Amino acid sequence: MTAAFKIKRLCIIGVGLIGGSLARALRKNGCVETIVGAGRNKAQLERAQTLGVIDEFDTDIARAVRQADVVVVAVPLGAMRDCFGKLKDAVGESTIITDVGSAKQSVIAAIQAVFGRLPRNFVPGHPIAGTEKSGVEASFAQLFAQRRVILTPHNTCDASAVKLVQQMWEHAGAQVLQMEAQHHDEVLAATSHLPHMLAYALVDTLARMQDRQEIFAYAAGGFRDFTRIASSDPQMWHDICQANGEAISQMLGVYIADLQRLQQAIKHNDSDYLKATFTRAKTARDQFSEQS
Amino acid sequence: MTAAFKIKRLCIIGVGLIGGSLARALRKNGCVETIVGAGRNKAQLERAQTLGVIDEFDTDIARAVRQADVVVVAVPLGAMRDCFGKLKDAVGESTIITDVGSAKQSVIAAIQAVFGRLPRNFVPGHPIAGTEKSGVEASFAQLFAQRRVILTPHNTCDASAVKLVQQMWEHAGAQVLQMEAQHHDEVLAATSHLPHMLAYALVDTLARMQDRQEIFAYAAGGFRDFTRIASSDPQMWHDICQANGEAISQMLGVYIADLQRLQQAIKHNDSDYLKATFTRAKTARDQFSEQS
Repeated sequence: MTAAFKIKRLCIIGVGLIGGSLARALRKNGCVETIVGAGRNKAQLERAQTLGVIDEFDTDIARAVRQADVVVVAVPLGAMRDCFGKLKDAVGESTIITDVGSAKQSVIAAIQAVFGRLPRNFVPGHPIAGTEKSGVEASFAQLFAQRRVILTPHNTCDASAVKLVQQMWEHAGAQVLQMEAQHHDEVLAATSHLPHMLAYALVDTLARMQDRQEIFAYAAGGFRDFTRIASSDPQMWHDICQANGEAISQMLGVYIADLQRLQQAIKHNDSDYLKATFTRAKTARDQFSEQS
Repeated sequence: MTAAFKIKRLCIIGVGLIGGSLARALRKNGCVETIVGAGRNKAQLERAQTLGVIDEFDTDIARAVRQADVVVVAVPLGAMRDCFGKLKDAVGESTIITDVGSAKQSVIAAIQAVFGRLPRNFVPGHPIAGTEKSGVEASFAQLFAQRRVILTPHNTCDASAVKLVQQMWEHAGAQVLQMEAQHHDEVLAATSHLPHMLAYALVDTLARMQDRQEIFAYAAGGFRDFTRIASSDPQMWHDICQANGEAISQMLGVYIADLQRLQQAIKHNDSDYLKATFTRAKTARDQFSEQS
């Protein structure tokens, strides 16, 4: 990384946990001159400015992107298409556009539908980072440190645009990788989207039980860790389900079948199956701990 | 709590995470004179003695319990019955026996089968504490601090025995509660056993996928928290499945049905269902965070 990397005017649309943390990281590392925030939520933008996360803001997306060198679209997946529509005619020819959506095929389809083609200067991206919290108050400069960012550039992507987005994330502390959009969506369905579905479903199942008060009263540390991600933003996860529904539904199917087999093994006291399953899982989880 | 509480000779059968932590806590708080460890694993007992967790040990359970005032059976659920058989004829008339099993009906049935009746001085117990680690090396005196211990005394239980076991756990830092054994098993199936099954099944599902290396490489913080409990001891969880199979299987059935409904909602893009489910879950999880 060279000290020379600097974005003159960065526009972040959606200054929440991800957008806010990126702004903080780039600012902290001296990689940006001016950060303009944009979005529908004026109160959040004012708060971001008060916190020093952004220099200025505009609730009019077209105005906000007009002079920007780089535009980062950090809105929920369900708002992407509308957002692309607003910036389409305002964004400059050489302005680089990237996004942070947790699913990539749907974002690519959305911008293609709006622009009538895939813009050469659009680089789809996804930082694999976050917490169960949301909003600019929860943002912090270290969010992307040692985290991975996956870029899924299409065939017609401008190479220098990809390079700049890669450098931007590297200067925010992340390790940047590339893969096909479809493959990204399948991998994330397994490692992120599926666990979130399971945690939401578990807490909801328990919350709807008659003795819910008592149930939660006796939950211990393991339960706390296990269900932390069920505190994530419902709207965001609603959007992810819509955007990557096919892959998530497919993974859920595989998982439900495995769970039914496990249930049968418990019912029929199949010691071998239980020991083998738990041991395989422990081995894999312990390896994961050592590697990450 | 009075300073007067002191167990003269405490025998802990199975000096692992739970047994070792109880020994450390009682020792630290000056509540015990001599701690004798017992069990099959001589190396672990030697290690426990070297660490100062126990004063002496005996791999012969009958000899170990002979002079004890209190015997804590902290072996895996699957070893309980065998252990009761070994201590039956050696334990003194006034010796108080308790256990730490994660399921209570099966332990009560085991001691009843071995003794031909429910001993009046046997107090079934379950400290709701633990980590994904196991073994005496992982034990620490603070494990039970602000944790709950559930006692499930039967009708013929000696009241002074119940009181002593309660005091013992309170002096180890825990809050002690009582409930029916069956109710305990149902509540724990929901809050502890079910989440462990889900975590084991998830890691195993992913570990058996073709691109497992890549899948784990892209897993992030949420996945780490969610799957931590899948590093728990496979033998212990095998035993819990056998001991509380009916309640676990029943909870799994409820959960699988809920998960199938969620999958249908994702397939058919049922926004209302997804938002309602995620929002209910987040609300319940946030309340749980505030209370615990």
